[in-house]
Amino acid sequence: MNPKAAILSIGGEILDGRIQDTNANRFIRALNTIDIPVVNILSCPDDIIQINDSLRFLFLNCDIVLTCGGLGPTTDDLTREAVAEFTGGNLELNSTAENALSAYFERKQRRFDETNRKQAYIPSGSQLINNEIGSAPGFSINHNGKLIVSLPGVPRELSLMLKDSVLPLLLSLYPDKQPLHSEILRLFGLPEAAVGGIIERASLKPSTKVSYRATFPEIQLRLLSSSSAEVQEAAKIAAREIGEEYVFSRSLDESFPAVLHRLAVESGSTIAVAESCTGGMLGSLLTQNSGSSAFFHGGVISYSNELKQILLGVKNKTLSQFGAVSHQTAREMARGARTNARTAIGVSISGIAGPDGGSEEKPVGTFYVGHSTEAETVSYRFFFSGEREAIRRFAAFAAMDTMRRHLLSLPIHAKEQENED
Amino acid sequence: MNPKAAILSIGGEILDGRIQDTNANRFIRALNTIDIPVVNILSCPDDIIQINDSLRFLFLNCDIVLTCGGLGPTTDDLTREAVAEFTGGNLELNSTAENALSAYFERKQRRFDETNRKQAYIPSGSQLINNEIGSAPGFSINHNGKLIVSLPGVPRELSLMLKDSVLPLLLSLYPDKQPLHSEILRLFGLPEAAVGGIIERASLKPSTKVSYRATFPEIQLRLLSSSSAEVQEAAKIAAREIGEEYVFSRSLDESFPAVLHRLAVESGSTIAVAESCTGGMLGSLLTQNSGSSAFFHGGVISYSNELKQILLGVKNKTLSQFGAVSHQTAREMARGARTNARTAIGVSISGIAGPDGGSEEKPVGTFYVGHSTEAETVSYRFFFSGEREAIRRFAAFAAMDTMRRHLLSLPIHAKEQENED
Repeated sequence: MNPKAAILSIGGEILDGRIQDTNANRFIRALNTIDIPVVNILSCPDDIIQINDSLRFLFLNCDIVLTCGGLGPTTDDLTREAVAEFTGGNLELNSTAENALSAYFERKQRRFDETNRKQAYIPSGSQLINNEIGSAPGFSINHNGKLIVSLPGVPRELSLMLKDSVLPLLLSLYPDKQPLHSEILRLFGLPEAAVGGIIERASLKPSTKVSYRATFPEIQLRLLSSSSAEVQEAAKIAAREIGEEYVFSRSLDESFPAVLHRLAVESGSTIAVAESCTGGMLGSLLTQNSGSSAFFHGGVISYSNELKQILLGVKNKTLSQFGAVSHQTAREMARGARTNARTAIGVSISGIAGPDGGSEEKPVGTFYVGHSTEAETVSYRFFFSGEREAIRRFAAFAAMDTMRRHLLSLPIHAKEQENED
Repeated sequence: MNPKAAILSIGGEILDGRIQDTNANRFIRALNTIDIPVVNILSCPDDIIQINDSLRFLFLNCDIVLTCGGLGPTTDDLTREAVAEFTGGNLELNSTAENALSAYFERKQRRFDETNRKQAYIPSGSQLINNEIGSAPGFSINHNGKLIVSLPGVPRELSLMLKDSVLPLLLSLYPDKQPLHSEILRLFGLPEAAVGGIIERASLKPSTKVSYRATFPEIQLRLLSSSSAEVQEAAKIAAREIGEEYVFSRSLDESFPAVLHRLAVESGSTIAVAESCTGGMLGSLLTQNSGSSAFFHGGVISYSNELKQILLGVKNKTLSQFGAVSHQTAREMARGARTNARTAIGVSISGIAGPDGGSEEKPVGTFYVGHSTEAETVSYRFFFSGEREAIRRFAAFAAMDTMRRHLLSLPIHAKEQENED
């Protein structure tokens, strides 16, 4: 059997515009890992009739409806009642849920009263789904061969319950399904369309599912298969065809700053930055993770030319002759950052983020990355077309990528490269 | 008549997890401004039968269905066909759309062929909705007293078409409706629950609609009413009850960095920063908008103690006696930033973003903001409980708020304040 799923978000916050729905995507990415497709996503208000109508509609095209929201203690929260009505049952006090709830309130040093006890009632015939970190328990119930799974709307709680309870439950109910093996390739430096084209031409096995997720400016390529050997082979082919050098990480837990952290620590290198158009964004990225002081010393936000001179030692002549956005200035900035901070590596960014300030020779989106070590100081010219914040973010990633490629002795694909005079 | 609306997102990218739906929220916020509530949001695949089933289901509870997606030139794009079938019509070539399309392709220097011409076909009986910036035109069609509006899924195109064409169309079709007058209060420094409580107790008129949007760490309070006088009065009451000092902006176009830009330029002040735990995030925020060099000179990312000493002149004794996260260090950092850059204002952040590094005296979430001018150098201790990135973002905003409050001579509500010895 190849069950299909639908997602039902219950509550007014999404419909009145207060929040954007992010839970649907959490459900989908979890279901992807066991190869259950999602055919509909629906948001409806906290209303018993509308929830029932929604369930009826969704079950026309699917076998499993996963709901989120409407499990709180207030009178607005009607998911329990609606599901009980849909399945022709009543609400029953679940003693396990009651004990967990009263323990939860004790832990939080809050009073446990009748309003809160409401959350321990679940539809008759349903199975409790524990909530280890929040108050509202979830439940699942079979009805005429269809399955309803109801979870709270709090993202952290929902994610944990999905992983710990719902996926195992689905695997037990649908024994044909098995957890898919996955490989992640995290890429920087190629447009999504280019990666898509390469993967299409790579003719991976049809049984290998390919999906993309663009979290600008990186691209995440996910390969899924029921065979571990097949997905590893697919990852090998994909990385080879795209180019290994573009794969900066193979783990959702290792972000670009974490990669640099590891590479820098492995090679005993320390890093300092000098930022112009990014205004501190590179430093902010590099300090995203705890413990980044192991490799990152800091640096200078040299937004004004004066600070480039005072704090980085960029020469007045360099600025007047070549401009602040130039190979020469980027190199002097990188060298200044390194010598200031006495780090192994100094990296700099100077560019035109726009929307103003471009010229024919250096249009908006032009930026230079300087890279300085004791052995050599090099600068690279890059270009990215986009809006101001996108250009800045791309430039910060390009600087991280320049460091990564230096640490790994990989080629750097800049529009131009200049070495120190 | 009080029409209700529903939103139908058509296409596979949301259902297979590639992208998150953000268009629904765009529709909702536009419809809010003319007081049309949204009762359902549904995503369905590019499939003529499923689109028809979806329309039938949605029209059970509403009068208007707004669709997005499925208007491209490929064989996957079936929204035109599905709506034609639903309304019992055919697809007809619209010559205005054809001309606009061929002009669009000429502008983009791309070849206009039969595949592209497909986009100029719209359901018989429908009205064209021009797309000024993209290729896919939209359309609207009345059917048995119900209205279908179909727009492309590209966010920028959709937003523009909503504002320029769809809202005016809806106002003409539902003459009882009128554009609501709105007032926005953008707040920083109070929790959302506290703001909610204050607004509830303020007993605004029931005809004034109140909505919140939390774009961490700021809170946007939106007041809507058909009466301009009423909404202005409501905004006055709300600001008074919350406290005028917490309202940093009254415009969606003026972000916190833009407010500082304006205040600094108005007062002829320039700003430099010294950042520890935020690692450059404050500088990155301050340079979000073009032209920020008018007030922002740059500064130092003093992540290591060594850089605090070398680039900011923080005394070794201060670091060893009080620690890097202290009133004294924050003040010396702020003064160092100001004197380095010769700006009117220097502002610093030093804190413990966690998850490690906290102590009983200074738990994770503790941070100091230093503020230095020629007249005085002050430091403030703040605390925010949350995850690392949330603490860092809150601290960057708290530093901006400290500058704002200084420039406007408003009180600063820190846990502790210390002036220079």
